[in-house]
Amino acid sequence: MTQQRIYNFNAGPAALPLKVLQEIQTSFLNFDNSGMSITEISHRSSFFENVINDSVARAKRLLNLDDRFHVLFIQGGASMQFAMIPMNFLSEDDSADFVNTGSWSTKAINEAKIQNKNYNVVASSEDKNFSYIPNDIQFSNNVKYVHLTSNNTIKGTQFHEFPDTKGVPIICDMSSDIFSRPLDMEKFGMIYAGAQKNLGPSGTCMVIIRQDMLDMANETIPTMLRYSTYSSKNSMYNTPPCFGIYTIDLVLKWIEEEMGGLEKIEEFNKEKAGLLYDFMNSTSFYNATAREDSQSLMNVTFRLPSEDLEKSFVAKAMEKGLGGLKGHRSVGGCRASIYNAATMEGINALIEFMDTFAKENK
Amino acid sequence: MTQQRIYNFNAGPAALPLKVLQEIQTSFLNFDNSGMSITEISHRSSFFENVINDSVARAKRLLNLDDRFHVLFIQGGASMQFAMIPMNFLSEDDSADFVNTGSWSTKAINEAKIQNKNYNVVASSEDKNFSYIPNDIQFSNNVKYVHLTSNNTIKGTQFHEFPDTKGVPIICDMSSDIFSRPLDMEKFGMIYAGAQKNLGPSGTCMVIIRQDMLDMANETIPTMLRYSTYSSKNSMYNTPPCFGIYTIDLVLKWIEEEMGGLEKIEEFNKEKAGLLYDFMNSTSFYNATAREDSQSLMNVTFRLPSEDLEKSFVAKAMEKGLGGLKGHRSVGGCRASIYNAATMEGINALIEFMDTFAKENK
Repeated sequence: MTQQRIYNFNAGPAALPLKVLQEIQTSFLNFDNSGMSITEISHRSSFFENVINDSVARAKRLLNLDDRFHVLFIQGGASMQFAMIPMNFLSEDDSADFVNTGSWSTKAINEAKIQNKNYNVVASSEDKNFSYIPNDIQFSNNVKYVHLTSNNTIKGTQFHEFPDTKGVPIICDMSSDIFSRPLDMEKFGMIYAGAQKNLGPSGTCMVIIRQDMLDMANETIPTMLRYSTYSSKNSMYNTPPCFGIYTIDLVLKWIEEEMGGLEKIEEFNKEKAGLLYDFMNSTSFYNATAREDSQSLMNVTFRLPSEDLEKSFVAKAMEKGLGGLKGHRSVGGCRASIYNAATMEGINALIEFMDTFAKENK
Repeated sequence: MTQQRIYNFNAGPAALPLKVLQEIQTSFLNFDNSGMSITEISHRSSFFENVINDSVARAKRLLNLDDRFHVLFIQGGASMQFAMIPMNFLSEDDSADFVNTGSWSTKAINEAKIQNKNYNVVASSEDKNFSYIPNDIQFSNNVKYVHLTSNNTIKGTQFHEFPDTKGVPIICDMSSDIFSRPLDMEKFGMIYAGAQKNLGPSGTCMVIIRQDMLDMANETIPTMLRYSTYSSKNSMYNTPPCFGIYTIDLVLKWIEEEMGGLEKIEEFNKEKAGLLYDFMNSTSFYNATAREDSQSLMNVTFRLPSEDLEKSFVAKAMEKGLGGLKGHRSVGGCRASIYNAATMEGINALIEFMDTFAKENK
């Protein structure tokens, strides 16, 4: 079965480490000698408590989180967070700053608007089709938080450094680059990530939230929309997405024990993306769409000389076992998503194919 | 591996059909010759579109749903529905009727209260510790909907017939008995079910909603909390819980193709529960806690002569490979959850053990 697997460059749901998939498969009918599948185990059992506690402990170790931080698992993806954030943190007279770096930021802003909250868009790269990350941003005084999207999967841009917000907590959507590099967590009041890129299957969103953010959250909103519901019950006020949390635990274990932690995985990610960008820079056939200082290490977006060639490129790549290279349906072009689980073997195979394709279609 | 599996009487997450688990395991590294795991496949791919469309089509066939009904997949479990229902259907001057049959109904009522909605609790079995299902209920005039919980997993009670609400649509939490029997869908404006009992893994809630309910839903609430967001995008406004939907599809296929549909599965469920209740009636050692006319076919709750004996019963049963027989932590006692996937072999093993245990502890 393994040998029939493709090189998977999907943007999300995306490739997972083969070792993680194999462990899930092997134990799928009998998890941890329970005599049950992980999908059949009570979330109140010690079997599952070990899983969720281990995943929280691993997340904390990897990111060097101190006791102020809580690691939560919430359903609904990042899109649900777009709504929960203003609902929890913005009362009538409060306001927040947003930086708009593309489709996901725009959606986050829109959910604050739907709730009639006060907000400021303090910077945007819409003027150049979201092809760069703004710098020298002037943040407002007296806002509750600054909202950023660390990596734009669609446009292939990424914050390589996070701005100085003069003590205002950053809330950051890290759906597509969480655990891909070390973070200075002092800047962040909350980070969140839909799992389906760097963490596990779709259907679980990891939220890391600092105690002072919880202290200022609204407690009069519906129970399932309050962060305190999750922090006070170890994410088990109701039945959590057990299979997702289990897979996340295995992925975090893989990052810690196989990949050597976040410094090492950042090096690896820089090496992989570097090879791809360097190769493209060496040709005139492939053109990266993001400005050089803003290029993402996770999603490498590029154009070919024509749309016909792009179609042919995606189709021929698939024939060679290289999948998921089509750009997002909203922008076209091509995209190679190379999250933590992308292998060097896959990168080399992709570059080899790109080189051949360019020569054949000059 | 298979032979080490236990008989699993967990209330949820609960036993799944072995055939379903085996199919997931076999194809876990390479779904449908895609070269990817089901957890790695884009939700926008034809691979996944086939899965979600097949699961919707199967749900519609099994319940004989006509074109007025939409089958949706939403995250957050039934607990999120407790909040979404009043948010979507109750404007300032509207009201709803609730029937309170235990912990889950109480939580549903509480979420309407948190939102300052108008509501009436028109019947309750709290006077007798939720041990029965009320009948001869007087519903209000001019309410938007009547909310029921079809089966109470904790107290082991179940609506065997649904009340006549004189045309007011019933919204019913069927988390623990959906697809366990045929339904007359004319009575229902909406039914919903967390998957982790009769449908699949935790993390996906199936919502079946009629067009006239969608037509009256509030469109000014956050995007992810609107039913129309899911109905207009085939549950893919954002990345859905793909693994959950895939497993649900396999479970529905099993109900249709292996078990012969809902009439047959109802017969099977009646037979299984009948054996257990009949056995208990034949002893004075085990006492069912629910009133005879209200006893659930899904969750058989019972007491032994003492709490010490109950502890010993649960522990000894586990030694014999019979798991999950402890009652809900809020009420104590014992409980055998016997959803669709519970096998006759498991029921017989349980009765044999109960018989031996009673004789040894008289």
